[in-house]
Amino acid sequence: MPLQPLAGITVFENDSFVAGPSSCLALSQLGAEVIKIDPIKGGPDIDRWPLTADGASIYWGTLNRNKRSVAIDLRSEEGQELAQALITSPGENAGVFVENNVGRPFLADEVLRAKRADLIHVKVQGSADGGPGVDYTVNAETGIPLMTGPVDSPGPVNHVLPAWDLVCGQAAVTAVVMGLYHRAATGEGLYESIALKDVALAAVANLGWYTETLQPAGERAKQGNHIFGSFGASFRTADGRHVMITAITKRQWGNLVQVTGLEAVIDALQTSLETDFTLETNRYTYREILESLFKPWFAQRTAQQVAADLEGSGVLWGPYASAGEVAREALDSDQSGVLRSIESETLGTMLVGAQPIRVNDEYLTDAQPTVFGAETKAVLSERLGLDSAELGRLHDAGVIGGR
Amino acid sequence: MPLQPLAGITVFENDSFVAGPSSCLALSQLGAEVIKIDPIKGGPDIDRWPLTADGASIYWGTLNRNKRSVAIDLRSEEGQELAQALITSPGENAGVFVENNVGRPFLADEVLRAKRADLIHVKVQGSADGGPGVDYTVNAETGIPLMTGPVDSPGPVNHVLPAWDLVCGQAAVTAVVMGLYHRAATGEGLYESIALKDVALAAVANLGWYTETLQPAGERAKQGNHIFGSFGASFRTADGRHVMITAITKRQWGNLVQVTGLEAVIDALQTSLETDFTLETNRYTYREILESLFKPWFAQRTAQQVAADLEGSGVLWGPYASAGEVAREALDSDQSGVLRSIESETLGTMLVGAQPIRVNDEYLTDAQPTVFGAETKAVLSERLGLDSAELGRLHDAGVIGGR
Repeated sequence: MPLQPLAGITVFENDSFVAGPSSCLALSQLGAEVIKIDPIKGGPDIDRWPLTADGASIYWGTLNRNKRSVAIDLRSEEGQELAQALITSPGENAGVFVENNVGRPFLADEVLRAKRADLIHVKVQGSADGGPGVDYTVNAETGIPLMTGPVDSPGPVNHVLPAWDLVCGQAAVTAVVMGLYHRAATGEGLYESIALKDVALAAVANLGWYTETLQPAGERAKQGNHIFGSFGASFRTADGRHVMITAITKRQWGNLVQVTGLEAVIDALQTSLETDFTLETNRYTYREILESLFKPWFAQRTAQQVAADLEGSGVLWGPYASAGEVAREALDSDQSGVLRSIESETLGTMLVGAQPIRVNDEYLTDAQPTVFGAETKAVLSERLGLDSAELGRLHDAGVIGGR
Repeated sequence: MPLQPLAGITVFENDSFVAGPSSCLALSQLGAEVIKIDPIKGGPDIDRWPLTADGASIYWGTLNRNKRSVAIDLRSEEGQELAQALITSPGENAGVFVENNVGRPFLADEVLRAKRADLIHVKVQGSADGGPGVDYTVNAETGIPLMTGPVDSPGPVNHVLPAWDLVCGQAAVTAVVMGLYHRAATGEGLYESIALKDVALAAVANLGWYTETLQPAGERAKQGNHIFGSFGASFRTADGRHVMITAITKRQWGNLVQVTGLEAVIDALQTSLETDFTLETNRYTYREILESLFKPWFAQRTAQQVAADLEGSGVLWGPYASAGEVAREALDSDQSGVLRSIESETLGTMLVGAQPIRVNDEYLTDAQPTVFGAETKAVLSERLGLDSAELGRLHDAGVIGGR
């Protein structure tokens, strides 16, 4: 049994979309019991794509697995009181809450903290001023889409990955664990808020990309799949596949030149251009010439031949794969890596990710699909001591849902 | 003075590029003293782009600010012993180490743990099997680049954001804080490793995107800047700028239709197509028709007019900005947000990001540029008690660098 550092902790969650739910999924993998409180008909992401052929949300089911799902009418006063009571329920390992609400005053920090002073409260926001924001709108405001895409392509190119949601979600994991650390050391709770837009702007700033624009060179232009300031490019193989080739270090560069047999050509080019390609700066400056020199080597080989030739060469590269290819390879694997398959009644075969933070080199996994609302009565009984008559009344009154 | 939850903790760092350095930058903002041990001439990222006009690395200087820089000849036996001694030096708030080494046996976990049993050791890797990997090669293998870019564009489109490095770096922050929590609770150390490739595959899997390919619909095609499964699109304004418009919820959709004055057209279209655009699934299905209907409204207005019309409309949107525009706006701001400017002798005006995790709604900032190697002697004196004669000898022997 691998060590789960958060075993024994209970986290309450009331959120939707990616950032919050992904953070609580991670907490569950690290050992916490996660109790997800949702509106009685589900949050705004309950039917979000991708869907199964039967219309079940793979998105919701994947991000929210391994959690205990509680459905409460959060518009009713009685439902709001139940949610507050759960979140602030006693127990030294409880009192942890992750949420992304806008305009639910009954979940405001001061309201909850009045009921439990040592609450660890992590609030995920769009903007730090309380305004809305999602990955797509926030990303537009970072400058990234105008740097992304083929050279000379007009207009912004968005990445499809909700990268900011993922970084923000991981920051929420940090915030929860930091709250636990702080409470263990001081006995005090912690209120932490994280805005998606702040996550994005701070990350780009901390790469130096805003400072860069203040230099004489100014704005960075689009550069396709080239790696800025070094050598990296995509190549097409004889069988129409693609590979990403990088030569960031001097050694990687030497290996690439050697395996492609271009030593003499590169030497002659260095002499005629009076440059030194062992410096990555120069490889970047002449990236298009270098790309065109390597292009035929890849175009003459199938992806399989490229892989065979690069094997053991010390070149740092990766084959482009489609999502379906990744999925099939994972299904066919021995399931000892980060991707695992689990079976769900509603979603069929699911491919899910283990926790990438390995403890003592072991993966922390999870295997429990979540059924919406299924744990409502069990959680209310365990945490608030409600008996079956009371639970029946709440259910009949439409205050709670689920089983 | 804002509460810094990690105040008093000392973290040692020996790493390069984005993931490790960004994690330790975050730890420093959360209050930790970070001591960065680098090879005597710097790591492989010491000269990485972007550069100033004078050739100084904005990248290195930005990711590694607010750290105490120690330069040691890590190839010499004496230098290796110094590094080990620092990392395992006593103090109940020390014994924390973040690294991304491949093949430095003197920094192996068992070697360090033999010297300090309660070490918190976070190892960032390319691949969990110990193999190499960088953001560009790992991303190729996730399936994302083949989903990114304009509809029908051939081949992979890489995002320029090193998204996996950022997520991995934030996971390393979590790992450090979790180690502190675990050590506080049990007195025991923790060895945690995180592979960049695992971070990427797990994140995509946990969005449900690999499971999606197992459904009858199969692989997801490229869809430009549209939001999968909902409504979101980029529009060009009369003055050649671009805006990202989303309508994810029913309310946002209603607001968009209302502000653009398209109620009658949308109603007629719903009737003729026998569909209901209040469901995001249907907005996605007819995304190209809807995009073309809204297009003239944006094309007839400048970006400023669009902003004025959307103000207070309840439409969730964002203007695309360039990195330079973000930078200038931040420089002109009152510096109370997440972006701050600091002055550096070598880098000039830097725009840096505060810690996006706010504590009690206050930003945790930092303001200290790092000079490579500048703290070598001070750190060795403080932590290992070396006197000036010994420090002079080590410096003259080339075992240590810096001041």
